[in-house]
Amino acid sequence: MVRDADATRRRLLDAAAEEFAAFGIAGARVDRIAVAAASNKAQIYHYFGNKDGLFEAVFHDLVVTTLRDSPIDATDLPEYAGRLFDGYVARPHVQRLATWYRLERAGTHDLIDIIVESNAAKVDAIAKAQADGALTDRWSAVDLLGLVLQISGLWSGMTPEYAALVADENHAHRRAVIVEAVRALLA
Amino acid sequence: MVRDADATRRRLLDAAAEEFAAFGIAGARVDRIAVAAASNKAQIYHYFGNKDGLFEAVFHDLVVTTLRDSPIDATDLPEYAGRLFDGYVARPHVQRLATWYRLERAGTHDLIDIIVESNAAKVDAIAKAQADGALTDRWSAVDLLGLVLQISGLWSGMTPEYAALVADENHAHRRAVIVEAVRALLA
Repeated sequence: MVRDADATRRRLLDAAAEEFAAFGIAGARVDRIAVAAASNKAQIYHYFGNKDGLFEAVFHDLVVTTLRDSPIDATDLPEYAGRLFDGYVARPHVQRLATWYRLERAGTHDLIDIIVESNAAKVDAIAKAQADGALTDRWSAVDLLGLVLQISGLWSGMTPEYAALVADENHAHRRAVIVEAVRALLA
Repeated sequence: MVRDADATRRRLLDAAAEEFAAFGIAGARVDRIAVAAASNKAQIYHYFGNKDGLFEAVFHDLVVTTLRDSPIDATDLPEYAGRLFDGYVARPHVQRLATWYRLERAGTHDLIDIIVESNAAKVDAIAKAQADGALTDRWSAVDLLGLVLQISGLWSGMTPEYAALVADENHAHRRAVIVEAVRALLA
């Protein structure tokens, strides 16, 4: 029974990730998620409370996976940015969900603890590498983190019009642009 | 009468920009826009056809303003990025509207001609500066345009959690980070 419950919860999270990525928080429909997960609305409310609770569970799940798969290496930020890009390509939902979250929630909801803690740990890691002389101090640690994160998202946040211009650029090329751009910041 | 019509259209565009920036295309409500503009739904349909037509008019209006106020100077891309940032700060709607547009429309609607043409002109300007030896050819023209646009949006696309870390950084500092980051790419 525990295993059945875990499987149902997993199916609901996967179906909800698809739905929220496509339509955002306000636009997502709990009944579509229930159908896609071969479940029902009562189960969603049982596991997650409401649509907001379901979104937070989906987002938390993806953040944990991203943090686990792309740990920061402050002594090699270019490669860190490349790994983040790999993760965005492997899980395109992450960037879309983060963007919906920013548009629909910023300024109106509490910050998400796991992201606050992750950012603080990254800033500390960069500051330590700078103090050790392993990393340029041309930028403050927090500004450098922002630049690295922004550059790693280069190909995820394109306008449709820009995307059409680079439609034939492959993964290796796109990754190299990100890695080399971060390297240029550190020169 | 023409002047009255222009004034009504302008009020509707301004109210619609607020509404779309806050709630996106699907989430915007035409009746709220009508009330905010001291107009009515019949006038909106008269001027813009439907909600999609109204969004396109708002977006077009902001794109034209942005292109006019921040023309590209391919021989000084760092300062160009700084001017784009100034524009995003002066008109925060632009970035939010562009992001809603990307999330809600990419892949399902025609590209917007004015942006396609603007991008093509920017790529040409960069390629010409490269051919003239005024700009590094370390990056392709289209990749360099993407990097400059992405870096100029550094402080507009932050997660709420990252924004909290840099809440006390002022405009001059933020602008300098963008300008210097683009300069580093060109070194």
